[in-house]
Amino acid sequence: MTSTGRVTLPIEQGMDEQLPGILARLGADAVRNSDGTWLPEITPQLGVKVYETYFPARGNQEFALAHLDARPRFYLMSARVAAGAEGALEIDIMRGYLPLQVTPDFTDLYRWWEVIDRTTGDVVDVEGWSVSGEGTDTVVTIAAPAPFHVYTVNFLAWQVWDSTQMYNYTTNNWQEDPTRVREIGYDARHPQAWEFMQQSLRDWCVERPEVDVVRFTTFFYHFTLVFNDLAKEKFVDWFGYSASVSPRAMDAFEVEYGYALRAEDFIDAGYYNSPFRSPSRHYRDWVDFQSRFVSSRVRTLVDIVHDAGKEAMMFLGDNWMGTEPYGQYFGDIGMDAVVGSVGSGATCRMISDIPGVKYSEGRFLPYFFPDVFTDGGDPLGEANESWLCARRAIARKPLDRIGYGGYLSLAVKFPDFVARVEEICDEFRAIHDLGGGLRPENAPIRVAIVNAWGSLRTWQTHMVAHALWYKQIYSYLGVIESLSGLPFDVEWMSFDDVRAGSLDGVDVVLNVGAANTAFSGGDEWLDADLTSALRRHVALGGGLIGIGEPTAVPANGAFFQLSDVFGVDKEIGWSQSTNRYPVAHGEHFITADLRDRVDVGEGAGDIFGIDGAELLQLDGTSVDVAAHTAGAGRAVYVAGLPYNADNTRLLHRAIYWAAGREQEFSSHWTSTNVDVEVAVFPATRKALVMNNSTRAASTVVAGRSSGMLGDGDVVVHRLELDAMESRWLDI
Amino acid sequence: MTSTGRVTLPIEQGMDEQLPGILARLGADAVRNSDGTWLPEITPQLGVKVYETYFPARGNQEFALAHLDARPRFYLMSARVAAGAEGALEIDIMRGYLPLQVTPDFTDLYRWWEVIDRTTGDVVDVEGWSVSGEGTDTVVTIAAPAPFHVYTVNFLAWQVWDSTQMYNYTTNNWQEDPTRVREIGYDARHPQAWEFMQQSLRDWCVERPEVDVVRFTTFFYHFTLVFNDLAKEKFVDWFGYSASVSPRAMDAFEVEYGYALRAEDFIDAGYYNSPFRSPSRHYRDWVDFQSRFVSSRVRTLVDIVHDAGKEAMMFLGDNWMGTEPYGQYFGDIGMDAVVGSVGSGATCRMISDIPGVKYSEGRFLPYFFPDVFTDGGDPLGEANESWLCARRAIARKPLDRIGYGGYLSLAVKFPDFVARVEEICDEFRAIHDLGGGLRPENAPIRVAIVNAWGSLRTWQTHMVAHALWYKQIYSYLGVIESLSGLPFDVEWMSFDDVRAGSLDGVDVVLNVGAANTAFSGGDEWLDADLTSALRRHVALGGGLIGIGEPTAVPANGAFFQLSDVFGVDKEIGWSQSTNRYPVAHGEHFITADLRDRVDVGEGAGDIFGIDGAELLQLDGTSVDVAAHTAGAGRAVYVAGLPYNADNTRLLHRAIYWAAGREQEFSSHWTSTNVDVEVAVFPATRKALVMNNSTRAASTVVAGRSSGMLGDGDVVVHRLELDAMESRWLDI
Repeated sequence: MTSTGRVTLPIEQGMDEQLPGILARLGADAVRNSDGTWLPEITPQLGVKVYETYFPARGNQEFALAHLDARPRFYLMSARVAAGAEGALEIDIMRGYLPLQVTPDFTDLYRWWEVIDRTTGDVVDVEGWSVSGEGTDTVVTIAAPAPFHVYTVNFLAWQVWDSTQMYNYTTNNWQEDPTRVREIGYDARHPQAWEFMQQSLRDWCVERPEVDVVRFTTFFYHFTLVFNDLAKEKFVDWFGYSASVSPRAMDAFEVEYGYALRAEDFIDAGYYNSPFRSPSRHYRDWVDFQSRFVSSRVRTLVDIVHDAGKEAMMFLGDNWMGTEPYGQYFGDIGMDAVVGSVGSGATCRMISDIPGVKYSEGRFLPYFFPDVFTDGGDPLGEANESWLCARRAIARKPLDRIGYGGYLSLAVKFPDFVARVEEICDEFRAIHDLGGGLRPENAPIRVAIVNAWGSLRTWQTHMVAHALWYKQIYSYLGVIESLSGLPFDVEWMSFDDVRAGSLDGVDVVLNVGAANTAFSGGDEWLDADLTSALRRHVALGGGLIGIGEPTAVPANGAFFQLSDVFGVDKEIGWSQSTNRYPVAHGEHFITADLRDRVDVGEGAGDIFGIDGAELLQLDGTSVDVAAHTAGAGRAVYVAGLPYNADNTRLLHRAIYWAAGREQEFSSHWTSTNVDVEVAVFPATRKALVMNNSTRAASTVVAGRSSGMLGDGDVVVHRLELDAMESRWLDI
Repeated sequence: MTSTGRVTLPIEQGMDEQLPGILARLGADAVRNSDGTWLPEITPQLGVKVYETYFPARGNQEFALAHLDARPRFYLMSARVAAGAEGALEIDIMRGYLPLQVTPDFTDLYRWWEVIDRTTGDVVDVEGWSVSGEGTDTVVTIAAPAPFHVYTVNFLAWQVWDSTQMYNYTTNNWQEDPTRVREIGYDARHPQAWEFMQQSLRDWCVERPEVDVVRFTTFFYHFTLVFNDLAKEKFVDWFGYSASVSPRAMDAFEVEYGYALRAEDFIDAGYYNSPFRSPSRHYRDWVDFQSRFVSSRVRTLVDIVHDAGKEAMMFLGDNWMGTEPYGQYFGDIGMDAVVGSVGSGATCRMISDIPGVKYSEGRFLPYFFPDVFTDGGDPLGEANESWLCARRAIARKPLDRIGYGGYLSLAVKFPDFVARVEEICDEFRAIHDLGGGLRPENAPIRVAIVNAWGSLRTWQTHMVAHALWYKQIYSYLGVIESLSGLPFDVEWMSFDDVRAGSLDGVDVVLNVGAANTAFSGGDEWLDADLTSALRRHVALGGGLIGIGEPTAVPANGAFFQLSDVFGVDKEIGWSQSTNRYPVAHGEHFITADLRDRVDVGEGAGDIFGIDGAELLQLDGTSVDVAAHTAGAGRAVYVAGLPYNADNTRLLHRAIYWAAGREQEFSSHWTSTNVDVEVAVFPATRKALVMNNSTRAASTVVAGRSSGMLGDGDVVVHRLELDAMESRWLDI
């Protein structure tokens, strides 16, 4: 492999002699700095494209300190405190929060704060409470609470320390570095701040002629990240819009939407509109409102960058609120590129599928930070794990570039790691070179994932913090992760889209998630238009796959509202008096190839079969996997689908079966070994065969030189692959 | 032990020579027949009290066949069937039912049947559907269903075969016996049937002078027991009131209550008002209405029995609907005795605690039926298991009598079993003899179990079918089972009782069960009066113990509405963005004595701690056991409590701790070995020390001769007990 390029490396000061060698070895054609590092003076002489990080809404402490009223804010909720038998109730609102990060905002507080009786949900009249003290000692006193009711205070608070800088500061022990200060942000809605942001960027572009790409990290408002009183993370929502709130914004919202938002619209009883909550109309309006505002102002910044002859790149994270790349305003921004952290196949596709940018770049893990690059850390293992997940997603829809971040000086102390990165870079470039710059062919089966968020959160569903393991999500995230490398066109549809008829042309619909979440859908399934649309889809020959608690809401005698279609339902205690006699079905197309029982992760509780369902796996009397024919169509149920090779194959086959195309499966460039996947590029007459495991693999791969369609002969290829090996076949 | 009596044996024809010996050996002082056996002619010469089974509402086939309109009925729901894109929808209502047991009742069917759109919950106008065919071929046609909606038919059906007789018939292969017929029941509301029932009983009493006790098995309406088309049980609800419905009863109800019941009031979306459903007002009214009717008519029958100089005994089961012994009308009946099947300690207490009867009798397991008394059966093992569970409950509140049922001729083929029964009878009588006919002393801690049913279902909560193992109940039933042998006064309170102030004087309140069930309480916990009553109870020094999903309903930012009191709540997906850092607490009074981790059974999902709770056991990051001080009181949370010795001890200690009396525990006649329990009888200065396990046990027992109170010296007793041994101490 002789091609180079498509790779970005973080560089820093003090490595001038090493840099040209490292860049050449990895074929890197771009360099960047990171949060906390600066580009060395040698940079312009390296002959590569230069990125520099840029923080529009923090970094100038002089401006920040002179304009403390421009600090960003968020709404916070106090602890839940019960009143006693009689007397006033005092609530110490800062209990559990970190004064270094937040302080109450007293501006017009009786207008913006709320005290709520959490026993009844009633708002306490402003006459009924008062505020005393300040800062950490702020106390709200409710004069005459209802005895033994629980109360909370929704209060507006200043963010007195930027959340990401705080995270980096504590992770890197910057408190020991006297040159570091705790950076304060500023709000783009503040008129002087906004003027300052524009002028600063103009000045910066002039001052930094050697920079080719302005790497925005990111724009104005941070995802919700609140620390507790021990400086540990207390609340993290990568998708949160809470940290963009301000009286100015709420006033503007009221003018535009004709109604006022309340503190409770943001606090959401303490759930802060987590993406697992079925979004309220008010919250959707707020997301839309802020997305338009942010996108429009970012457009102005991007124009400044372009006017200076540079490119604008957005880091997908940190202060990305309002520029969600699958949102309807992102295309208006004119962004040249997006770079994001690749923690999995799903996050890879989240980046590579972004529409309307010139190129996408995946920042690979591990990040060169001292938490991993240390004695006892395993950067090589993390690199392999990350690459095996990412490769199958890249093969399916290539990122344009890859890169790394952090401190290069740390990484070079691990030569095995650098050697492996060299191989990864070559393997990555080969996908572009041998794939002819095209996507591989997908099966002729259109797949749609249906949930409350729809396309806005393409590849982003079921995540709590960014790409971390959580007990209640991994059994669902596996579906998204599996799909990231499977040969299907996948689209994301909201329930409103389904009601509006978007299922036309879709072959297989997926509904995935836990009951009462935005992903399964909760009360949406009480809507007969929605359930009827899906019953129609299946009755007329379509496929439906449910994972976990699909279509779940207890009503009218069912928990899964499409239990008649799935052929299964969940026992939630009310029908235990009904006897059931489950019998496991024998071999089935869907479960062929599996090496062991399906791992359904956390499962979904007690699932029972209904007349006519084929119960493909039972756990005691509970159904793990079922297949059911309903009318001309088919439905598949799986209790949970953590990501692994067998489950990926289960989903691959389930989609073919649900689509009624199981006869074609074995000639569609599939592998008999579930550890091995294939991407076929008929245009270049190549197929990429990937061993996703860390053991050697024998397999048989079969397909036509025309790809999945056509009537040419099916050719069988027998391969022996080394651990993690990928190999290109001529077809 | 030389006393005799207190034991009832089933006898049958053909064993005349053996009978006197067996009776003497077991000290039996009463005999009975069973369903399907007849007393031998020798009976009056045996010198014992004679019971004979009596079935008021079945058994006379001549009357039944001459009055088919007197057959009992129930409401049944068809399968759920989805409409297609267009055209009429036909529903085969008998699909899944057994024609030998049920047949549709066409009487005025457009008044009594209902067709329901289960997608919307709407009732279809009677003009919109019609019925064709009959019997198994009955079809309901909905002329113009909403496309892709799901429909069901609620239909009234005749019970053409008595449910218990059908069960006995199939269990004993009576179809091979030409003398047996499938018995049809008759409804006590039918005027001729009621006349016939009274006259038959009068005649029978005259014809059966040798009978001392009329053992009613039972009265009029069977618990709900419906078979499927393969003659297997399809729906079993031991508490069901569905099988008592008739147009006559519904008309009478409407006159009395001023509103008409609908079919759906009985069908309940297919859940048939299972006791796990929070009971609707209509259903509660129906239970009350039928209980008054049944109790009043049973009173008439009991008067007939008394007039004939005999005693009336009620079997607690089968056709017991309307004579629930903890209901408010039972005392009016004048019943002399109740006999019930003892499957556990809880069922034992259910019988022994019944107020207002002269004596109670427990029918022990195993029943002498060929399902157990066969090659490969283990009657001895079943007898031991049953006795170990029952003994601790009997020691706490003695049954007056014990007995057995079924075919004695089967049992005598198992001499080991008979020998063990002899020991059991002696051990049982000793409790009466040495306990002085008194109850042992209880701890000075009043315990109340709070749920939707309250005292009506004393010792009967969380059961599906009678005393069987179900996955979703065993983790809660263990609480009831543990309590059946613990030294506490336990009462059962409804939520209405709590609102009415019944917690006064209660020390420790328990709320036990799964979310959305009548036992946890579901939507009841939205009521501020209820939650405030419990917060007040704890704040003023009371105890609260929650098992599973106590006070659970998602509202106002909490799932457990008393999460602030318990110090824990459950993560239902919405607050995953909130970070938690659970730390296990060290040793604690509550978990002292345990030999291993607490087995929480099915557990309750992801439970997280809140400020101030002591997390006594963690499973990963989820809380299994927690203790929390709230105001002057205390709360304990346990994720599940299947019955075993360690869990019983956990509950024993948790109650002491929640009551704030943990200092007294070790001098209250407790055993250091959790397998061993003690019942203390200060009046006779005796203590019964029981080894509940099938292994030998060493233990230390400490207490005062005055029992639990008083200030005498605490004496320590060291004991070595054989497997299953019980031993009486002089104190």
